[in-house]
Amino acid sequence: MKKIMNAAADIVRESCEGFAVAHADLVKLNHDPLFLYRADLATQGERPKVALISGGGSGHEPLHAGYIGRGMLSAACPGEVFTSPVPEQMLGAIKATAGQGGALLVVKNYTGDVMNFELAAELAAAEGLEVQSVVIGDDVAVQDSTWTAGRRGVGGTVLLEKIAGAAAEQGASLAEVKQVAEGVMAGVRSMGLALSGATVPAAGKPNFTLTENEIELGVGIHGEPGRERAQMRVADQLIDALLGPIVADLALKRGEEVIALTNGMGGTPLLELYVAHRHLCRQLEGQGVRVARHLVGNYVTSLDMQGMSVTLLRASSEQLRLWDAPVVTPALRWGL
Amino acid sequence: MKKIMNAAADIVRESCEGFAVAHADLVKLNHDPLFLYRADLATQGERPKVALISGGGSGHEPLHAGYIGRGMLSAACPGEVFTSPVPEQMLGAIKATAGQGGALLVVKNYTGDVMNFELAAELAAAEGLEVQSVVIGDDVAVQDSTWTAGRRGVGGTVLLEKIAGAAAEQGASLAEVKQVAEGVMAGVRSMGLALSGATVPAAGKPNFTLTENEIELGVGIHGEPGRERAQMRVADQLIDALLGPIVADLALKRGEEVIALTNGMGGTPLLELYVAHRHLCRQLEGQGVRVARHLVGNYVTSLDMQGMSVTLLRASSEQLRLWDAPVVTPALRWGL
Repeated sequence: MKKIMNAAADIVRESCEGFAVAHADLVKLNHDPLFLYRADLATQGERPKVALISGGGSGHEPLHAGYIGRGMLSAACPGEVFTSPVPEQMLGAIKATAGQGGALLVVKNYTGDVMNFELAAELAAAEGLEVQSVVIGDDVAVQDSTWTAGRRGVGGTVLLEKIAGAAAEQGASLAEVKQVAEGVMAGVRSMGLALSGATVPAAGKPNFTLTENEIELGVGIHGEPGRERAQMRVADQLIDALLGPIVADLALKRGEEVIALTNGMGGTPLLELYVAHRHLCRQLEGQGVRVARHLVGNYVTSLDMQGMSVTLLRASSEQLRLWDAPVVTPALRWGL
Repeated sequence: MKKIMNAAADIVRESCEGFAVAHADLVKLNHDPLFLYRADLATQGERPKVALISGGGSGHEPLHAGYIGRGMLSAACPGEVFTSPVPEQMLGAIKATAGQGGALLVVKNYTGDVMNFELAAELAAAEGLEVQSVVIGDDVAVQDSTWTAGRRGVGGTVLLEKIAGAAAEQGASLAEVKQVAEGVMAGVRSMGLALSGATVPAAGKPNFTLTENEIELGVGIHGEPGRERAQMRVADQLIDALLGPIVADLALKRGEEVIALTNGMGGTPLLELYVAHRHLCRQLEGQGVRVARHLVGNYVTSLDMQGMSVTLLRASSEQLRLWDAPVVTPALRWGL
């Protein structure tokens, strides 16, 4: 294993420090407990009524800290690599950013995250803060997994954070922001595949290995097993293998519109992701489904894993309006 | 080799098609000859006086097509992977986008690119179009290389395209845009390193291999040899090894300001790039050099290569002003 790091134990903290320096105009770092939050909240005195807060294990960058900023997250709590942050981090983030309407916690469905965010919500409530949570599980690959009871939260998280963040920015109440988030959850599905494993710094070797002809179909973002160890195939067939289960699960119909994310797992070049996205769009258009908005790139990664995932959101006109709303974060930026 | 592609011979064309679909609001694709250009040029009837046009071998995405848009490139010509585009492509791009003031061609210093862009400029001149070129060679690692007479063009290209693109957008003349580009060239230097080779689709295996303890220090973006096959070391020392030659070559002095790019080669996670950027900033600030602007991520890549490069531009206040000007491209976007 070769990694650009000093000690494995320091990689998350040092990376957060570098991130905060690079994006000082947008993000501030709190060291202890460790969380990152919108730089403009302290000075403008005009927090959104509702803070949108997320977090989870590191190794999925730019998720979550890359999505902090106007129109998206108020704060993010990074855990160690592939490890849930602790409740003290979420509590600190809530206290630093909650508006007069409270805070909505966006939790990816992994056992540790769910438990720790729940505890943080209770601690915040005990201090008189109004906090609600949504738990996202958009991965159609498996029902339960090694890390989860129920579906795993993966690429749909980015779409949820963008759309709910826009609602919060526009002054929606806690109940309204939560409703928007639940609306996204109802209509978003994902599935991924790996061409290679990922190497956790502290472990020093890939979390699984594949031969030259194998892929892991339905892989999780921590390298959790998917549906099957399958045969490698050409790009168009890889997309078909991801798209089929998603379209079936969503019961997508002719005439509907989607937001489509073709997401890289971290180690796959953009050149290849666009080849995949080409076929994704052709297939959907062929089924009479309009791809109304596109996102292609490394948005929810798994360290250096080679592979990709597809996320589709069946999008209403209101969701498209919130998607198009201005966003100014390190990793997603438009409209301002 | 596992790649998300159909046939290796189709990967560039199919990727461009996917790119054009994903970014249809910003970019249009011309099939034959193959080039991409600003979607707003046809409709707005208000081309910048001077078109900024670049191109080169594919495999370095988002360079160059990712930088097409308002405030940056007017067009980009993708060659096959690691292979120069042909003059017909540049000529097509020039004819499609040149303004009343002509076009400036941004050429990375590789033998094939220089030759083909020169030929294209001659063909355009023969048709009465005013065309000038700049050839960028910002890589301090080696003087000549397997692909180049003189220094190679690498990460500095992004900074040049952004800053010269802003000047063009603001209505500068061809002579003025060229002068701005030459100003960037005078003050920008880069150096990179590889932890792994890159796999060209048509070749099917990595262009070089490194042991678990080796790095290629000074590597080029096609995997060209650098200064030495060196020992792997911790992140801070990797940065020191890149920063030393750059600072020396620029003769950076206390009190000066730079734009700093910590660039991933494609296969290195953001988590690691920010660890590197943290130390880069500390070292520069320790030397009394202010990092006035930051860019961290995969901006000039080498397919799936693991590694990074550092680019520094000694920036004048005028260059910073042009850097901050609005840019709306698939891969770089701010201010609007």
